[in-house]
Amino acid sequence: MPGGITAPDGYKASGVCAGLKPSQKPDLALILAPQDALCTGTFTQSTVRAKCVDVCSERLAKTAGRVRAILVNSGHANACTGDRGLRDSVIATKAVAEQLGLLEEEVLMCSTGVIGEAIPIQKLLEGVKPLINSLDREGGLEAARAILTTDLSPKYISIESFLGDKCVRIGGMAKGSGMIHPSMATMLGFLTCDVSLPKDVWKAMIKRVVNSSFNSISVDGDTSTNDSFLAFAAGEYVDQKYFEDIENGLTIVATHLAKSIARDGEGSNCLIEIKVEGTEKIAEAQIVARKISSSSLVKTAVHGCDPNWGRIIAAAGNAGIPFRLEDVSLWIGKYKLMDNGLPLDVDRQSVSQYMKEIVKGKEKKTLIIHLIIGKGKEKALSWGCDLSSEYVHINADYTT
Amino acid sequence: MPGGITAPDGYKASGVCAGLKPSQKPDLALILAPQDALCTGTFTQSTVRAKCVDVCSERLAKTAGRVRAILVNSGHANACTGDRGLRDSVIATKAVAEQLGLLEEEVLMCSTGVIGEAIPIQKLLEGVKPLINSLDREGGLEAARAILTTDLSPKYISIESFLGDKCVRIGGMAKGSGMIHPSMATMLGFLTCDVSLPKDVWKAMIKRVVNSSFNSISVDGDTSTNDSFLAFAAGEYVDQKYFEDIENGLTIVATHLAKSIARDGEGSNCLIEIKVEGTEKIAEAQIVARKISSSSLVKTAVHGCDPNWGRIIAAAGNAGIPFRLEDVSLWIGKYKLMDNGLPLDVDRQSVSQYMKEIVKGKEKKTLIIHLIIGKGKEKALSWGCDLSSEYVHINADYTT
Repeated sequence: MPGGITAPDGYKASGVCAGLKPSQKPDLALILAPQDALCTGTFTQSTVRAKCVDVCSERLAKTAGRVRAILVNSGHANACTGDRGLRDSVIATKAVAEQLGLLEEEVLMCSTGVIGEAIPIQKLLEGVKPLINSLDREGGLEAARAILTTDLSPKYISIESFLGDKCVRIGGMAKGSGMIHPSMATMLGFLTCDVSLPKDVWKAMIKRVVNSSFNSISVDGDTSTNDSFLAFAAGEYVDQKYFEDIENGLTIVATHLAKSIARDGEGSNCLIEIKVEGTEKIAEAQIVARKISSSSLVKTAVHGCDPNWGRIIAAAGNAGIPFRLEDVSLWIGKYKLMDNGLPLDVDRQSVSQYMKEIVKGKEKKTLIIHLIIGKGKEKALSWGCDLSSEYVHINADYTT
Repeated sequence: MPGGITAPDGYKASGVCAGLKPSQKPDLALILAPQDALCTGTFTQSTVRAKCVDVCSERLAKTAGRVRAILVNSGHANACTGDRGLRDSVIATKAVAEQLGLLEEEVLMCSTGVIGEAIPIQKLLEGVKPLINSLDREGGLEAARAILTTDLSPKYISIESFLGDKCVRIGGMAKGSGMIHPSMATMLGFLTCDVSLPKDVWKAMIKRVVNSSFNSISVDGDTSTNDSFLAFAAGEYVDQKYFEDIENGLTIVATHLAKSIARDGEGSNCLIEIKVEGTEKIAEAQIVARKISSSSLVKTAVHGCDPNWGRIIAAAGNAGIPFRLEDVSLWIGKYKLMDNGLPLDVDRQSVSQYMKEIVKGKEKKTLIIHLIIGKGKEKALSWGCDLSSEYVHINADYTT
């Protein structure tokens, strides 16, 4: 269903152009949650984190998750900007709080863009009024557009389902598409839900969901200073028997957003899905899968439509998870290339042709790489994208 | 001084073209050490390691380091080739041993090239005789040429110094230049020395030397299945008072080779040297330095001559080593860009121009990135290279 983060009952959002970015694209977004909303957040594990991330986590703690609004600016990460960075976050959220009639600590702020440059705060403050005036029950897409930086397309989703006779909706939006190797959360991701759950349940659920979605993607192996994922629950409390259904819904939304970030990775031509099976623990499969999706050599091989599976095995071998080569089987798409540790005699040209249909297609398709690395019962997925010359061009000239 | 691995007394080497590679470049090398030589080795920590690596470590254990010769083939890594891979290594070393009058276990074998393809063993065996016939006291350069794959230039060095009245020489050679993020050793590196040291001393010394040299470089963050470093000591026993001098010499040779691998990284235009200071432990500085030298975003920024220092700080923040941003100062070359956590007002164009002189020069120069991240007394260096479109081209089409 359409709507993104404003699809669930009671949420409003908006996005405007405040002139913060030279490109004159939308750069300021606002999410307003219902009065009874509960918010939980996961943030970058980097030693160097932006002051706005500190503001988010402090205010979530202070209000026990009872925050109402999130202001998001794109173009400036507001990281490594010293005391000024903190001051700007406080001033900006204060302006939003005053005009919405909220307490300062009920407003969070997320920033994304270049590290080390201050936000043009005067322009931002001038943008707050039009931003609030355009808050709308159908503003989800505008907000999703305003949080982008090098992304090619906005990333949003909303789903609905009946739990008993109650229609529940979950919405989400996110942005990529460089410095993406999330540790606890993606660069920026937001989720809304129109039923309430007990705080501890919601928090634990979101942690698991983020782990299997945003924490399973990699665009370039670089974790950002600003990674944040914030998830609102609001509305009637839902019966415990539906918790599993809710978590499934959250997983669908978060996985969709995570995959769209990987698919839209800078310079990419396809989404790569890595499926690793046969470990004793889920975490082991996840570590191996993510090591493969992060490998420059795997990513360039996919870009070149080159079935150089040795690089996939080499990457798996470097994940630090023990396995026996004799237990390894490997597929690229429908082609089985290795069976119990031994290469199979497969026509390289056919596999390459198959890869070309995915990588060189007009629309971005998904290349599936599947490994069995043992006899254990657990498995995990990871997503990444190919590494192209375009990635180099984009990143060789981002600030100057 | 000239000579590479054959500069020290008593070593012979050779390199020939056995027709293993389609390019018809030299692809088979041999090192013959003196009768009393002691060899120590460090190998890839990958879960998936080539059978030839197993052969090396088993034979070193069996002979207590008393091996005499190393056969090296380039073009085929002989990894993931199952029982055939092991058989081929055994057959090849047996042929060398017979023709040299050595025991089988006195011959080691290293392989580098494409993973998963068998060595054309018949051609290799036909190459053994000419290879042995051309063994020479001045064969160091021929051997250094025959071990290359995507390297643009051979990598070798030799130094000499008088310890008391005894002239001691150390030689070395290595090859890169993709799948380079060594864990214990580089893809392939060899060192020769014409004095003897007690076995335990030699082993511990080589471990330390490899750690500060080969284990401190990264080209693409991918650790190979075949990484091996083998170091020979032979000749008169040297007095204990010279151990430190010997270790300094070994460090010079290993660091030179490691840096030449990074400098010749696939598609690179410059060497990047990362210097991190101010930690409590050397290992902490090393982890941070290597995280920076491995970052795709730092590497593309350098390629674009873009003083986007935020990416350097972000990479440092993701190394998992705690530090306070307020303690961080950062320089690119002579330009100080951050002081105690605060960005300095430096003209970006000047820094970019300075980077251009290094990155766009005809000869490959070195860009130095220097960070102080605390008040501790330890420091470490790491080396990498810029990430260019050329890297993508090289790696998108390596096997097909």
